Amino acid sequence: MMAAGKEPSMAYSNIITLTTDFGEGDHLVAVMRGVILSINQDAKLVDICHQVKAFDVWDGAFTLAEACGYFPPGTIHLVVVDPGVGSSRRPLLAQTRRQAFIAPDNGVLSLVYRNESPVEVRHITEQAYFRQPASATFHGRDVFAPCAGWLSRGVAPEKLGPVIEDYVRLEFAAPHRVQDGALEGVVLRVDRFGNLMTNLTLDDAPELGAQPAAPVRLRINRRQVTRVVEYYGMGRPGEPFLIVGSSGYLEVSVNRGSASQALGADAGTPVRLEMGGGSSS
Amino acid sequence: MMAAGKEPSMAYSNIITLTTDFGEGDHLVAVMRGVILSINQDAKLVDICHQVKAFDVWDGAFTLAEACGYFPPGTIHLVVVDPGVGSSRRPLLAQTRRQAFIAPDNGVLSLVYRNESPVEVRHITEQAYFRQPASATFHGRDVFAPCAGWLSRGVAPEKLGPVIEDYVRLEFAAPHRVQDGALEGVVLRVDRFGNLMTNLTLDDAPELGAQPAAPVRLRINRRQVTRVVEYYGMGRPGEPFLIVGSSGYLEVSVNRGSASQALGADAGTPVRLEMGGGSSS
Amino acid sequence: MMAAGKEPSMAYSNIITLTTDFGEGDHLVAVMRGVILSINQDAKLVDICHQVKAFDVWDGAFTLAEACGYFPPGTIHLVVVDPGVGSSRRPLLAQTRRQAFIAPDNGVLSLVYRNESPVEVRHITEQAYFRQPASATFHGRDVFAPCAGWLSRGVAPEKLGPVIEDYVRLEFAAPHRVQDGALEGVVLRVDRFGNLMTNLTLDDAPELGAQPAAPVRLRINRRQVTRVVEYYGMGRPGEPFLIVGSSGYLEVSVNRGSASQALGADAGTPVRLEMGGGSSS
Repeated sequence: MMAAGKEPSMAYSNIITLTTDFGEGDHLVAVMRGVILSINQDAKLVDICHQVKAFDVWDGAFTLAEACGYFPPGTIHLVVVDPGVGSSRRPLLAQTRRQAFIAPDNGVLSLVYRNESPVEVRHITEQAYFRQPASATFHGRDVFAPCAGWLSRGVAPEKLGPVIEDYVRLEFAAPHRVQDGALEGVVLRVDRFGNLMTNLTLDDAPELGAQPAAPVRLRINRRQVTRVVEYYGMGRPGEPFLIVGSSGYLEVSVNRGSASQALGADAGTPVRLEMGGGSSS
Repeated sequence: MMAAGKEPSMAYSNIITLTTDFGEGDHLVAVMRGVILSINQDAKLVDICHQVKAFDVWDGAFTLAEACGYFPPGTIHLVVVDPGVGSSRRPLLAQTRRQAFIAPDNGVLSLVYRNESPVEVRHITEQAYFRQPASATFHGRDVFAPCAGWLSRGVAPEKLGPVIEDYVRLEFAAPHRVQDGALEGVVLRVDRFGNLMTNLTLDDAPELGAQPAAPVRLRINRRQVTRVVEYYGMGRPGEPFLIVGSSGYLEVSVNRGSASQALGADAGTPVRLEMGGGSSS
Repeated sequence: MMAAGKEPSMAYSNIITLTTDFGEGDHLVAVMRGVILSINQDAKLVDICHQVKAFDVWDGAFTLAEACGYFPPGTIHLVVVDPGVGSSRRPLLAQTRRQAFIAPDNGVLSLVYRNESPVEVRHITEQAYFRQPASATFHGRDVFAPCAGWLSRGVAPEKLGPVIEDYVRLEFAAPHRVQDGALEGVVLRVDRFGNLMTNLTLDDAPELGAQPAAPVRLRINRRQVTRVVEYYGMGRPGEPFLIVGSSGYLEVSVNRGSASQALGADAGTPVRLEMGGGSSS
């Protein structure tokens, strides 16, 4: 909720980003591009990613959160990961201090709500800004893209619909500290290089940033990784190591190799971080 | 053919779309982007799709037709699916009332001719608008991209070459009604979610749009699908259902699953739609 | 090195191309797009390719070299294939007569140095143009993208750092003539259609361009290919043939098929070109 006295109703720019799970193998993303350009020929379309895992709201939330903050103030982010298309799930406009987000109300904006507080969220109800007749199967084309186009043309956010408070927020899978002082977490995603990004951060385990490095041990799939490096090239060939990645999350990597393959790990694999000389086994 | 008195010689905009079968794994699409920008730095390049099946003119025609209509008037569509590059197949400029299309004369514009009548088609012959010397292997770079660039710069269409009538039109695989009243069609394509898009439309089978839904049965690979839903989320997990998709074609889908996998079906799989209480078995 | 009296300090345009090995499956490329747009909202971002083979500097060099020359004067090319990120490898700005290149000093610009002489190369040292604090793991975001953004905003190249001479140049795998007059080369890459691009050019073997074609024989994986054609469609179905491709390199292709599959060949496969009636069998 936007605190009283805040004024998020800034003017938005022509920059509109697109994040979807449509893939790039057919015409679907292009249809949204065409719809936006038909409303605003000056729109500047920028892809964030179209390879969000199909129907995976959380993967969409993560992809968006990793990129949106790098875009300029006034950017409009369009997010279509929408397994509930056609049902009663609501279309949303969320406004942070700097940017706007247009997305289905299924939790795909959960990290925006968490990272960018205060956020003002509206239920988009004004059908005058939809393509008519709006289909039940492709709201990306008929609802979300047109509203992004109109917003970039200067339509006032309050015209799109009323402020709501009961929008869907997904719980972030935070790591938790267990009895012996270890941290239990999980692999969030695997990137193209096979790096395993966990949900552990420096905030969770300040030991990881100590100079010189404090002894730590990450257990994963019955293997353990103890070496902490500052950049990938410091890793010895074939040897898994720990590194705090560019997004601030602890990663397990192999220099010029795939940690995912080396450790047989994937998104969802549990990890356990043990600090100091404790809990060896 | 453009009827006498029509005037398609509108001014085209800087929006140029690209549809190819080049994939995105190398430099080929970028070369075309560079060529266009070297002619018109203000060109606004928009990808429709680069993953048209290699050498598959019909897949290109379908991809283009599904997207082009959503772009604004004045858009120039560049289509390079060109297995006959270097042979005598002609380069074409096709003008509809709203947009222009630059493509090889191999049928890749067949759906444009069908959907956008009247269309005026020119054989591009004026080598002054080609890169010199034009290769025999990459007309996307040497012929099609430059002509799109010049057209967006305001070169008059009639300067590119003469109007022709004998351009290649591929026959659309229309469904046909068989003796017992059933409709026989085919799966046209499979999207990333595994949805099967058939060539059957509401025009072919108005029963599909009836309220309440009339009883229908789609036979596919010795299975039958009888449930008709309005949006994907209405499907029960794992259960194939029928839905009229966002492009107006009848689709077979599975909610959050792949109908292609569930039914072992792919592009080219025959389907048979039986209406009412007829032809059960 | 730029010879005395040359003046490469041209004004650069807003066109910035991106070449990376990041793939398109996550947020990494988008982060760089956002960083650039935050510095220069008028930047015109154009993708060359994001599917350079992971960590493969040579594949990046080749991809860039095949595309960069088609872009207009003033273009800024941003190249991030950077296995040594965080180590002491230097960030570079290379200026040719027409364009600028921003990349790590790992040889990824080797073909630019070879093809675009004279080139003036600077070691980018001025941290005022970096994101702060710069990470050790993502210089694409923190060093290369911001410098490209600032350069497009008109920052003078000499402000980024001093001219250097000892930048890394990789040796191009040139074909060599062996005792019996044959040329020994190698397959450089395989495109999406399965065409095998070798490192042999018309300069190496003028016989390939003779009219009528002189007899030649390419040996590859114990097979031989003798037919030379001018465009792909001249090939008989399933039959491998030789063709001088759009980049000037000799290719082995199969009309509407994959030469890579037909001949079991891939990047790195040796080839041997025999001219005239010599060295049969």
